[in-house]
Amino acid sequence: MSEQTRREIGRAESTGRGEPGRTRLDSYVDRYAARTNGMTASEIRALFSVASRPEVVSLAGGMPNISGLPLDVVGQAIHDLVQTNGATAMQYGSGQGDPTLREQICDVMRLEGIEAHPDDVVVTVGSQQAVDLVTRIFCDPGDVVICEAPSYVGALGVFRAYECDVVHCEMDSEGLVPSALRDAIATVQAQGRRIKFLYTIPNYHNPAGVTLSAERRTEILEICREADVLVLEDNPYGLLGFDGDPIPALRADEADGVIYLGSFSKTFAPGFRVGWVLAPHAVREKLVLAQESATLCPPAFSQMAVSSYLTHHDWLGQIKQFREMYRERRDAMIGALDDLMPAAARWNVPAGGFYVWLTLPDGLDAKAMLPRAVTARVAYVPGTAFFADGFGAQSMRLSFCYPTAERIREGVRRLTGVIEEELELRETFGAPSRHLQRGYEAPNSDLT
Amino acid sequence: MSEQTRREIGRAESTGRGEPGRTRLDSYVDRYAARTNGMTASEIRALFSVASRPEVVSLAGGMPNISGLPLDVVGQAIHDLVQTNGATAMQYGSGQGDPTLREQICDVMRLEGIEAHPDDVVVTVGSQQAVDLVTRIFCDPGDVVICEAPSYVGALGVFRAYECDVVHCEMDSEGLVPSALRDAIATVQAQGRRIKFLYTIPNYHNPAGVTLSAERRTEILEICREADVLVLEDNPYGLLGFDGDPIPALRADEADGVIYLGSFSKTFAPGFRVGWVLAPHAVREKLVLAQESATLCPPAFSQMAVSSYLTHHDWLGQIKQFREMYRERRDAMIGALDDLMPAAARWNVPAGGFYVWLTLPDGLDAKAMLPRAVTARVAYVPGTAFFADGFGAQSMRLSFCYPTAERIREGVRRLTGVIEEELELRETFGAPSRHLQRGYEAPNSDLT
Repeated sequence: MSEQTRREIGRAESTGRGEPGRTRLDSYVDRYAARTNGMTASEIRALFSVASRPEVVSLAGGMPNISGLPLDVVGQAIHDLVQTNGATAMQYGSGQGDPTLREQICDVMRLEGIEAHPDDVVVTVGSQQAVDLVTRIFCDPGDVVICEAPSYVGALGVFRAYECDVVHCEMDSEGLVPSALRDAIATVQAQGRRIKFLYTIPNYHNPAGVTLSAERRTEILEICREADVLVLEDNPYGLLGFDGDPIPALRADEADGVIYLGSFSKTFAPGFRVGWVLAPHAVREKLVLAQESATLCPPAFSQMAVSSYLTHHDWLGQIKQFREMYRERRDAMIGALDDLMPAAARWNVPAGGFYVWLTLPDGLDAKAMLPRAVTARVAYVPGTAFFADGFGAQSMRLSFCYPTAERIREGVRRLTGVIEEELELRETFGAPSRHLQRGYEAPNSDLT
Repeated sequence: MSEQTRREIGRAESTGRGEPGRTRLDSYVDRYAARTNGMTASEIRALFSVASRPEVVSLAGGMPNISGLPLDVVGQAIHDLVQTNGATAMQYGSGQGDPTLREQICDVMRLEGIEAHPDDVVVTVGSQQAVDLVTRIFCDPGDVVICEAPSYVGALGVFRAYECDVVHCEMDSEGLVPSALRDAIATVQAQGRRIKFLYTIPNYHNPAGVTLSAERRTEILEICREADVLVLEDNPYGLLGFDGDPIPALRADEADGVIYLGSFSKTFAPGFRVGWVLAPHAVREKLVLAQESATLCPPAFSQMAVSSYLTHHDWLGQIKQFREMYRERRDAMIGALDDLMPAAARWNVPAGGFYVWLTLPDGLDAKAMLPRAVTARVAYVPGTAFFADGFGAQSMRLSFCYPTAERIREGVRRLTGVIEEELELRETFGAPSRHLQRGYEAPNSDLT
């Protein structure tokens, strides 16, 4: 049965339940927790289901391209894992995560200058769950989390689910602006509100594409140390830089004030959902208790599959291949933007990761334009998804990770056509009314 | 490096951080969310690390015995999955869970009389996460959850993490007592407090071992319908009954008022962490949003591995084998209890599942006795772990799932020895002081 058919049946059945069912539907609404009121499906979700059709070039999704993974090697490693260690891999495991994997995670983090002990690592169900667990143990409703402007949609969703107040802080081409952070902290503290942490993605930012400069890393750490603000460093793309060696993490210079989040989703594969938190020891203890409450333990099988891959495969060589593929795609996107986009559009050139942040000519609205773009068979994520406060309407996130270079060029060509039409319309009929759109987009894997 | 050595190093390093480190440790305490205050490691945890030594017969853990699984079949199925469908299995998936697996889950539930649509199923990271997500969308701090007395330690941990008030409700040999439920609802509602749901394990209860009778199922559903209280039916053991066909689920008779939780942890293997929620459509939508916020999506790989096992293996035949093995072990435990235990101890004879609930002779305290039991090389979980309010000190949960019949008999023999010594001491020196121990034990896989 096709998904389409299933959905139609689902709808038909819902309707078939008749009036009493609908009354019950209303009564659930009264029962939900306060936090659930903020959980609404994104308006752009329906569009993304259209955007996933093969004829549409999706520059929207953040799915890594894992077609380069050697399926024979992975298949054999997991087959051997089941044969030799199946009774452990299929059993309950430790709430903190597999000890061997936690040692390997320390090896991975060493590439970014982090010296850590496996005992301070907690394995999570992707780093999404890491954001969830950290927020769970730190944030009461009304607590403030400082985020970059823009910030990762999935993290904003978590902060919203825990009823935090997000305060956005300006970025420029060198990443988070220290003076803006200092001001934001001062303003919030003067209001008597509690800042629980700064959430930051220092490398190849999602969605902004920028990287925090070395000087600023020192400065940001100093500001947070002085103001006694914890740093939540989210670093899924750190090993996917296109030039030179990995950049030392914030955590490399500050162990007590930084909670570090890592992930195998972009350096190996997301389907195992293996991420991690490295935290100061006392915090780590709370995280394990939170993990046990959330899942009892992360999947032993996934963890041992990743561990086995790391043991039996040249994972660093594989990451190098990924980097080269993503660099080619970045080059294809930047080349196409340079060749095709109208002069008034602006974008950055990311030094790694998956994303370009594009700002439209004045007067254009990326969210309003999205249906027309999808009609023209190209998709992106409007900038509003990455703000908790409705800003970002003039911008969009373009992903170069998943489509081929050729498709990327075609996507940019179609997008340029849509933008040029919008500009023409604007010249003819004047600027469209722009709404500041409140609220955030619920995260899903399209928006990763 | 052994876990022991690692732990010692961890401790040494923590201490090595010196005074400034310690100051920071204190400062984390001030930062935690209110919910985190309740997250403390169980006092009995340290004992369980001793209890996991091979010379100790552990009647404590709830780990299924998966040694009967055909590793060659599972290994081959997963190998083929990677070869033929690896690009999907290793990629991000749907937040709701794999569509094929959700259809298979409906087939599984049909065995218990449930007619459900795959569109109303949400896959979770074990059914522990299902309890977490349901509580997340329904419960504000101070909301009441009605639970059986005793109840599953892992669920109590979740309710505590969301700052719910647990109201326990009496059980007897036929399960939850309807009049007690009616009284509890009336009392709580008269106090003006909101009851969010009744959390119940109708089949082969963890930890009480009892099963809700057919008449009572109807009555409990009626009471909840009248009082407009949702039912959260947790049913991990439903297919592990020792006599006759599976018992129809509460959900089989009531679709709108029951949220049903299922799991493959006991019928296949827990290491994949695949459980599910079946919920009314509106609730299901909220659960998907909550799942996306918690993990983006449950692991595609685990889900497709389970799906592939269900497709390629005689999973019903396997469950039958599991049932027979667990029945033998139940018989071994009951036989040993009958033969050895002093007359004043009481226990039930479970018709399925993993657990016997044993109540000690008057004046004995299972929690106080545990260190002496572990010294005598036998372990159990004291009853206090299964109450949110400190009761249960005279009782204990004995698991017959994991040790062999021979080890079970030896464990019961050792336990009897400890109890008899306690009784002698009591006769000689009088009753020991008994403390009502407040608080709950944090769940972990020892307590599953």
